[in-house]
Amino acid sequence: MSVNREFIPAKDAQAPFFVGVDLGGTNIKVGVVDDLGRALSWLSVKTETEKGPEDATQRMAAAVRQAIREAGVEPDATVYVGLGSPGTMDIPAGMLVEPVNLKGWDHFPIRDRLSHHCALPVAFANDAGAAAYGEFWVGSGRNLSSIVLFTLGTGIGSGIIIGDLSLDGENSHGAECGHLIIDYGDGARRCGCGKTGHLEAYASATAVIQRMQEALDAGRETSIQDRLAEGARLTPKLLDAEAEAGDALAMEIIMDTAMYMGIGVVNLMHTIDPAGVLLGGAMTFGGGETDLGQKFLQRIREEVRRRAFPLLAERTIIEFASLGGDAGYIGAAGIARLEYRKQR
Amino acid sequence: MSVNREFIPAKDAQAPFFVGVDLGGTNIKVGVVDDLGRALSWLSVKTETEKGPEDATQRMAAAVRQAIREAGVEPDATVYVGLGSPGTMDIPAGMLVEPVNLKGWDHFPIRDRLSHHCALPVAFANDAGAAAYGEFWVGSGRNLSSIVLFTLGTGIGSGIIIGDLSLDGENSHGAECGHLIIDYGDGARRCGCGKTGHLEAYASATAVIQRMQEALDAGRETSIQDRLAEGARLTPKLLDAEAEAGDALAMEIIMDTAMYMGIGVVNLMHTIDPAGVLLGGAMTFGGGETDLGQKFLQRIREEVRRRAFPLLAERTIIEFASLGGDAGYIGAAGIARLEYRKQR
Repeated sequence: MSVNREFIPAKDAQAPFFVGVDLGGTNIKVGVVDDLGRALSWLSVKTETEKGPEDATQRMAAAVRQAIREAGVEPDATVYVGLGSPGTMDIPAGMLVEPVNLKGWDHFPIRDRLSHHCALPVAFANDAGAAAYGEFWVGSGRNLSSIVLFTLGTGIGSGIIIGDLSLDGENSHGAECGHLIIDYGDGARRCGCGKTGHLEAYASATAVIQRMQEALDAGRETSIQDRLAEGARLTPKLLDAEAEAGDALAMEIIMDTAMYMGIGVVNLMHTIDPAGVLLGGAMTFGGGETDLGQKFLQRIREEVRRRAFPLLAERTIIEFASLGGDAGYIGAAGIARLEYRKQR
Repeated sequence: MSVNREFIPAKDAQAPFFVGVDLGGTNIKVGVVDDLGRALSWLSVKTETEKGPEDATQRMAAAVRQAIREAGVEPDATVYVGLGSPGTMDIPAGMLVEPVNLKGWDHFPIRDRLSHHCALPVAFANDAGAAAYGEFWVGSGRNLSSIVLFTLGTGIGSGIIIGDLSLDGENSHGAECGHLIIDYGDGARRCGCGKTGHLEAYASATAVIQRMQEALDAGRETSIQDRLAEGARLTPKLLDAEAEAGDALAMEIIMDTAMYMGIGVVNLMHTIDPAGVLLGGAMTFGGGETDLGQKFLQRIREEVRRRAFPLLAERTIIEFASLGGDAGYIGAAGIARLEYRKQR
């Protein structure tokens, strides 16, 4: 277990406390959050999917207890656990259904098993919905009344929050915005899900690598060729570095990614009309911290201005998310807090 | 004023009563609805936009009074008015902003003026949102917990209802789903709004006529050619009749329209994941009443099965709307009822 303590001390925290659990295919992140959304502790344990869901849920519960101890708060003051999990899932039933990244965990009643092992009530959420709620509660969306969060990584996840409501959907398939069709035609790109023309098939890390590979195969000149000859792997990070170093093709591929994301953002603006659209995940090309990240964001905004209703283009905030890898457990804790408040 | 009385009598109605007003560019439809969503009376007056919004609002209020009289209920039992209006608008402020179909009515505080003239509180809604709420309350969506309504006409309108919440959006631009981008490419069709690649540019009545004209210009064989030579106008109704009479090209254009609508439906399923998607408006090729309408609906469902997540394709209800031209005022009355209940 890795433990991190750079968080607010218990004496400055506002009771009651909530524990957020961010369940992933590789790691489970568990953190204690106060009533104002400030983290007091977090730790990470391996998921070890092969040991099965019951074993993992027991270790999850042990991590919850450890996080509460690390936070230094009264155990009784911790009132509710929130669990964000990858899909597919049945949110009202508290069940995993056929989670792609948790092989063999099909149809496991994870909410109630975790509640049993923790001896605390558990609120259940989609991982992307939890991350979106985290950003809405205390991240880049904290001053906005509704947001869409896109998380750019191997795939494209998304969460939609409208005034304290996470849009889970009738079948727990709400906000699968990576699978918006942006090209209906026969020549459209194939998505990881098997269908064609989805945003994810153009703007995910997988798609970025594929588009770069196509450019390499077409013989386009680029410093990437040299790095690959030196043994580097073709990743968004490599494109990032080469674009920063002045490679025109790497920059073009990144800016095209921004263009595609702009199209996805417009589709959400014309459906949800949120106060803000936030961009997070592993592939933001440095995010707000680098010139390249800023160029990426500017190109998204430019595409939005080109394609959205002028009033929306003018008013809708488009920004990077700010909680990074903490969004998931903070948001899960926030959703637990909503449930706790609803029941009082 | 045209008056229609084929509605339930006052003695069978359930108090309290609500008046729905459906404001359009040509007509204003006003109806009295009981607490169970059943209409007691309705009438229609001309909008006469050129006389300006204050004059129209006074006539609207007179129509409200007349509809109450026609309904035969106690005036005191009628407690709230709902007004559905075309955009652009500012719903929380109760203001029209720049309504395209109400020339010269810009920035008119229509909600409060109508309330003043009626001496009743007024709930303000988007016309498409009101129609969607009507279908959700007592139409095809009455057994569903969330719906998307597409209205196919000159343009494509839409409304999204999630558990008694009409998704108005942060800037009163929610559910502008006719303006979803389904083709981002340079060769995409141009929409009435000036942008390209929007669903409306492929599947609205305007787009149907345009695609048919292109086929005619390309010299495709069709009985439509004969009808046009006889002086008929190129309309969806003409395609409807010729397709029913066996014209292959008219059928092809209609089935392509269904394919495009299927793509739009999938995009909503992957964003909202509603319990049902309903299709209404003037251009449903007979709707549930004709074989052609049924073929149109089947083709939409087929495209959804081809493109949506299998679980959603299996579970999501896709049906015609059932309230026709009454959806707007019934839904506006329903939204008034929600406001009334919230305040008690």
